[in-house]
Amino acid sequence: MTGVAAVALPAVAGAHPGHRASDMIIVNTLGGLGNPNELPDGPDTGTGVDGTGRGGIEQRVIDDARASGLTAVNVTLGYVAGDMEPFEYSVREIGIWDARLRQRPHDLLKVLNAADILRAKAENKIGIIYGFQNAAMMGDDASRADIFADLGVRVIQLTYNPGNQLGDGSMAPENLGITPFGREVIERLNADRVIVDLSHSGERTCLEAAAHSRQPISINHTGCRALVDLPRNKTDEELRLVASKGGFVGIYFMPFLDPQSRATADDVVAHIDHAVNVCGEDHVGIGTDGGTTGIDDMAAYRARIAKQIADRRAAGIGAIGENPDTVPFVLDLNGPTQFHKLADLLRQRGYTENRIEKIMGLNFINYAREIWGA
Amino acid sequence: MTGVAAVALPAVAGAHPGHRASDMIIVNTLGGLGNPNELPDGPDTGTGVDGTGRGGIEQRVIDDARASGLTAVNVTLGYVAGDMEPFEYSVREIGIWDARLRQRPHDLLKVLNAADILRAKAENKIGIIYGFQNAAMMGDDASRADIFADLGVRVIQLTYNPGNQLGDGSMAPENLGITPFGREVIERLNADRVIVDLSHSGERTCLEAAAHSRQPISINHTGCRALVDLPRNKTDEELRLVASKGGFVGIYFMPFLDPQSRATADDVVAHIDHAVNVCGEDHVGIGTDGGTTGIDDMAAYRARIAKQIADRRAAGIGAIGENPDTVPFVLDLNGPTQFHKLADLLRQRGYTENRIEKIMGLNFINYAREIWGA
Repeated sequence: MTGVAAVALPAVAGAHPGHRASDMIIVNTLGGLGNPNELPDGPDTGTGVDGTGRGGIEQRVIDDARASGLTAVNVTLGYVAGDMEPFEYSVREIGIWDARLRQRPHDLLKVLNAADILRAKAENKIGIIYGFQNAAMMGDDASRADIFADLGVRVIQLTYNPGNQLGDGSMAPENLGITPFGREVIERLNADRVIVDLSHSGERTCLEAAAHSRQPISINHTGCRALVDLPRNKTDEELRLVASKGGFVGIYFMPFLDPQSRATADDVVAHIDHAVNVCGEDHVGIGTDGGTTGIDDMAAYRARIAKQIADRRAAGIGAIGENPDTVPFVLDLNGPTQFHKLADLLRQRGYTENRIEKIMGLNFINYAREIWGA
Repeated sequence: MTGVAAVALPAVAGAHPGHRASDMIIVNTLGGLGNPNELPDGPDTGTGVDGTGRGGIEQRVIDDARASGLTAVNVTLGYVAGDMEPFEYSVREIGIWDARLRQRPHDLLKVLNAADILRAKAENKIGIIYGFQNAAMMGDDASRADIFADLGVRVIQLTYNPGNQLGDGSMAPENLGITPFGREVIERLNADRVIVDLSHSGERTCLEAAAHSRQPISINHTGCRALVDLPRNKTDEELRLVASKGGFVGIYFMPFLDPQSRATADDVVAHIDHAVNVCGEDHVGIGTDGGTTGIDDMAAYRARIAKQIADRRAAGIGAIGENPDTVPFVLDLNGPTQFHKLADLLRQRGYTENRIEKIMGLNFINYAREIWGA
C-alpha cells in the first residue's frame, strides 16, 4: 500500500488562510451537498441527506462547503429505498448529477480517481464522488456494475438497512451473510475498480464481504458497536478485519454514536479514537452522513425530521436509534464549522497534526488510490 | 437564426497544412469511429457503422479520423434493433463511450453544445456527439428524454426503419404518422434541447414531426428521393419543410444514392446539389453513415457485409436497396481522403469556398447552436 507520505499537499490558499484546517485536504467519505432548510424537490431517497430532483446546486450550499474546507465528498445518488424502479432511478440520478456538475465547472469536479481529489484541492473546487447506498439496481445481472463504473460511480454500498439480493442489512433480523449473487457483484466491482462499501450491512454480510473481496473494502459511514450497541454501528471484529486487509473506516456524525441518540462532538471524537485503536491510524476517516450547510430554523427542521423518521419507520427502512426527536446529525458539529471544530477537538485530545490530516482526508485518498488508481 | 458569419474559424494548423480541406471545420452529422476491418466485439447495433463493446478506440482509427480532417462526428450509440432491452442497452453504451472518451482526453472531446465543436477544432481533437438512431428506449415514458439529455445525448432519431411507439419508419408499409406518444417525446426533447432527427422515418412521420416540433428538426443522414426512389431517401416535400423551418439535412455516402445501390462520389455531389436547390445552401451538410478508416481487404469485407445484410433482412430491419453485393458506403469516397475529395469535387462543380465550408460543417454548427445553445 502506498504510504501516506506519497500524498503531496498542493500549496493553495484556503478560504480561511489563518485557520489550519482550511489548508487540509478534507474528504467527507459519505455526505451531501444539499440545503437542509429546504424540502427536497424530488422523491426522498431515504438517505436523510439530499433531496433530489433535476436542478442545480444553490450558491449558498457551494459557499458553505467551501467555507467548511471540504475538498471532496461522496454524495449519495441512485436508488436507496422506495417504489422506484432501482436501475432507471439510479441512472436518472447520475444524469442529474452530471448536469449539476456541468452547470458549475468552476465549483465542482467529478472525482474518478485519487488524483482528482488533489486536483479539486489545487483548483479550489469541491470534488464530487458518485456513490450508491444500495446495490439493488444490479437486479440479477452483475455486469450492470460495468455500466455504473463507466458512468463514473466510484463507491457502491451493497445493502441499505433491509436485506436485498446481495446480502443482509443492519435491520435484517436473520443476519444472513452475503449471497452467491452478492459475491458475483463483489467480483465485478473488484474488476471494475469500484469501492465495495459495507456500511448499513448486517455483521455477517460485512465480514463475509471483507473476506471475499480481493480489494480492501470500506465502511465509509459508521460508529463503533463496542461503544454504543446499535445495529448501524460496526463491531470491533468488522472494523479489525476491514482494516487488517487495508480497508477504510469512516466515522459518521450521527445520533447512533450515543445510546440515547443525542450524540455530541465529544462522541464523534470518542468513536474516532476507538476506531483508531482498533484499526490503526492509517485506516480511519470521516463520513459524516450530512452536508455542510447549517439549520436556520431548528424547530421547523425538527418537525420535518420527525415526520420523515416516522415515514421511514412505516416503510421499514429506518434503523434502531432513529427516534422522532432525533436529528440526523451531531448538534454541536454541524454547518460550515464542523470540520475545523473536529480538528480542534482532536488536537485537544492530543492527536498530532499528521494523524489529524490522515483522518480528515489523507487516509481515504491513499485507500482510494489502491482501488481507483492514482 | 444566427448567421453563418457568426462562426469564427479558429486559427489552427491542420494535419495537412498544404491542403485547404484540413483547415475546414468538418462535421460528420452521422458517422462512426470504428475500424471496418475488424468484426464488432459486441452485438451488432444494426447501424452498419461501429461494433460496440467495452473497449477503447484504437490508434489507427484516431489517426485516420485526424488525417481526414474530421472535426466532430455524431456517433450512433444505444439501441437500434435487436433483442436487447432498449433502455438498459442504451445506458450501457453511454457508459462505454464515456469511458472511451476518458481514455483519450487528448484525442476526443464530448460535444455538449455548439462551442464544443469549435473547441475540438482549436484543440486538434475529434468532437464526439452522442446520438441515438431509434427512440425505442423511451418505453412509455417521455421523461426518459431528460435522462439521456442529462447524460449528454444530443441527437435522438425517432425511428429506425421499422415503426416503433413514436411513429413509422421508412420500411413500415402503412406510412402512419407520428403517434401521440411520439408528439410527447418531441415536446420533451424540445424542452431538453436535444435535436429531433427524422432520418430513417416514413414520410408522413417526418412531415408531422417537422410540423409538431417547436424547434427545427434534422434529417442528418439521407439522400434525395427525387433523384433515387428508395424509401431511405427523403422526398422534396420533407426536405423543403425541414429547411423552411430552419432545420438541417445531411447527405449520406450510402448506396441508396444510386438506383442500383452502387453509388459513386458523383452521386454524392448530385444529391448534395439537389438538396441545396431544394433547401437552400444554409441547410445542407454531410452525414456519411460511415467512418474514416478505409478497407484493407475488400473481398473479405464484402463477404462479411453480405452476411450482415442477409441477417438484417431476416430480422426485418433492412431497407430496400440493401443487396448482398452492396457495401454500405461509396466506393470512391471512403477512408481518410473522403472529405478532401468531396470538397474538391464540389469545387469542380463550381461551388464557392464559402458554400463548401457551410456544407462541410458550418451549417450544422449554426443549426446545433439553435438547439443546444452556443
